[in-house]
Amino acid sequence: MAAAGEAEIPSKRIILKDYVTGFPKEDDMVLTSCTSKSKVPEGSKAVLVKNLYLSCDPYMRAGMSKPIPQSYATAYVPGSVQPSRLARTARGLFVTLLLQAIIGYGVGKVVDSGHPDFKAGDLVWGITGWEEFSMISMPQQLIKIKYTDVPLSYYTGILGMPGLTAYVGFHEICSPKKGETVYVSAASGAVGQLVGQFAKLMGCYVVGSAGSKEKVDLLKNKFGFDDAFNYKEEHDLNAALKRCFPEGIDIYFENVGGPMLDAVLLNMKVHGRIAFCGLISQYNYNLTQHEGVHNLFCVVTKRIRMQGFMEPDHKHMYPQFLELIIQYIREGKITYVEDVAEGLESAPSALIGLFSGRNVGKQVVLVARE
Amino acid sequence: MAAAGEAEIPSKRIILKDYVTGFPKEDDMVLTSCTSKSKVPEGSKAVLVKNLYLSCDPYMRAGMSKPIPQSYATAYVPGSVQPSRLARTARGLFVTLLLQAIIGYGVGKVVDSGHPDFKAGDLVWGITGWEEFSMISMPQQLIKIKYTDVPLSYYTGILGMPGLTAYVGFHEICSPKKGETVYVSAASGAVGQLVGQFAKLMGCYVVGSAGSKEKVDLLKNKFGFDDAFNYKEEHDLNAALKRCFPEGIDIYFENVGGPMLDAVLLNMKVHGRIAFCGLISQYNYNLTQHEGVHNLFCVVTKRIRMQGFMEPDHKHMYPQFLELIIQYIREGKITYVEDVAEGLESAPSALIGLFSGRNVGKQVVLVARE
Repeated sequence: MAAAGEAEIPSKRIILKDYVTGFPKEDDMVLTSCTSKSKVPEGSKAVLVKNLYLSCDPYMRAGMSKPIPQSYATAYVPGSVQPSRLARTARGLFVTLLLQAIIGYGVGKVVDSGHPDFKAGDLVWGITGWEEFSMISMPQQLIKIKYTDVPLSYYTGILGMPGLTAYVGFHEICSPKKGETVYVSAASGAVGQLVGQFAKLMGCYVVGSAGSKEKVDLLKNKFGFDDAFNYKEEHDLNAALKRCFPEGIDIYFENVGGPMLDAVLLNMKVHGRIAFCGLISQYNYNLTQHEGVHNLFCVVTKRIRMQGFMEPDHKHMYPQFLELIIQYIREGKITYVEDVAEGLESAPSALIGLFSGRNVGKQVVLVARE
Repeated sequence: MAAAGEAEIPSKRIILKDYVTGFPKEDDMVLTSCTSKSKVPEGSKAVLVKNLYLSCDPYMRAGMSKPIPQSYATAYVPGSVQPSRLARTARGLFVTLLLQAIIGYGVGKVVDSGHPDFKAGDLVWGITGWEEFSMISMPQQLIKIKYTDVPLSYYTGILGMPGLTAYVGFHEICSPKKGETVYVSAASGAVGQLVGQFAKLMGCYVVGSAGSKEKVDLLKNKFGFDDAFNYKEEHDLNAALKRCFPEGIDIYFENVGGPMLDAVLLNMKVHGRIAFCGLISQYNYNLTQHEGVHNLFCVVTKRIRMQGFMEPDHKHMYPQFLELIIQYIREGKITYVEDVAEGLESAPSALIGLFSGRNVGKQVVLVARE
């Protein structure tokens, strides 16, 4: 129930200083002190959430760039262009309140609610701010957390957007069949580790690539991939794929783009399928600077299907997905590795680490324990 | 019925002199005199065909290159590497007989048959040699011509491989819906002119591009495209597409590749579809030299489906296709423009003309009138 109180509590948030070009740096973001309302304003249907976990996802790089028509995500509002910034000298406190935090997926606990579907104490996941408290003005996008016998952070990963991404990407987009060969790039990441496990559960032969020995070991020993390789140690990606797939690839789950895609195209089988989930190797370049892909003629000769997809188109599948996956987790059929950074202040470093592959598993930021 | 006679008749054929690198030239091929058996050898199930029309198709460029694993077509056997060539000095006549003609689609008349499905006088279309007479050793790939109230040459085009290509490419691969926007490149060619007309029949808004004013006029005035442009006169393909499709493109029928594809990706709508039929702009380069495509990230953000296809996978649809199209032709609902070169000797020039866009409409070679 919304309360009339307009009291404020101290909070902290992370803002983007200015639009980023090229690789983002930790100090492109800054932790600022601010205040948060302690209650939802009377008459509002907003929900006030205390953030517990924040998710670091590659798509967030798009939000750090100047808005362009072909972008992946709505651009964040950096401090440099916030209208309130202009008024800073005159009305300092007011300015601080209006500065917008970076936004992304997170897990939180409802502190106060003006919306009938939520009440104080509810655990929720969805789009929130990179801050201690967030006033969610469109709470209909929040999902109430149903199962708490798993780590709450899982709702930023296996039980959240990356989990549904992996599920629909593999099962709906790749049209997999038992016995087929599956290649996953960025295979130890938030999505890749799940795609590999889904493919194994289906009876496919699965190979993954990642950027370190530690990750390759995870793929083979923890996630049960049939084979894996460190792409940074292969001077010839085409040869690496031929070694792993002497008969060719039926399904490629594309997370990286660029030269890897070119090598994959040479190794696809006839009637192969490529699910375009993301192209993380290219996110720090403008679209026109993306590395050229030269082997698209294979799409004709091999009658390949390349299909882009995004999780929001498939949200309606979340309930059935959740029931299936929670069961898999409980039965030990699927495992999930997270890389948890502690404290809101560690979030900028955790986010930029995605682009150099520093994270091992799903990158999460712990903001507060319940 | 196969006859015992081993008599020979004078014939002519076109052979590839040697594997081609880069743009093919007319004198990469040569017209040679030879002889042909006048009857099918006794006991053979072959069919002897007198060739009437030969088809010039872009995919044939692949057959002119040194064989590579990713090729579009079986390489032709050029004179330079035919084993018989080695024995030339010693056994000149025998050599000439074994030299293999360029092969491709054609229309012919059965002269003699060892196969129960064919008899002398039958009109057929299918894979044949670039020669006056061809001994077809696998006649099961030949199709008997059912309707002769249309030009026989149509069986190299609208009623042959390009026709079925256009039909399955548009109706099966593009998943078109009434009212959608459709863009066709190489739109006045053997396939493109049909795709545009199929799309109009379906109630789509159709724009085509081609390489001359004459072709653009054909698109607008003969084939009923809603709009068309000469890509050679546009210094900015992205701007040209934005002008023609202010709301974006639902369906792109891809015949050319390279920079055109990059421009199209920027202009596709969300959930758009791209049928990869061919990439003629790239055929004279080795695969690794194909121009890089930079805008593939649009495949993710717009959830685009790109699907390669080839007509042979869809041969089972030919009978239903034929009945539909013959009716359309008779009712004047579909028209077809051919560019007919006269004489076998004109075939090399006709074929290489495809790669500079010299042909206006489907390129055919008339070898002999019935």
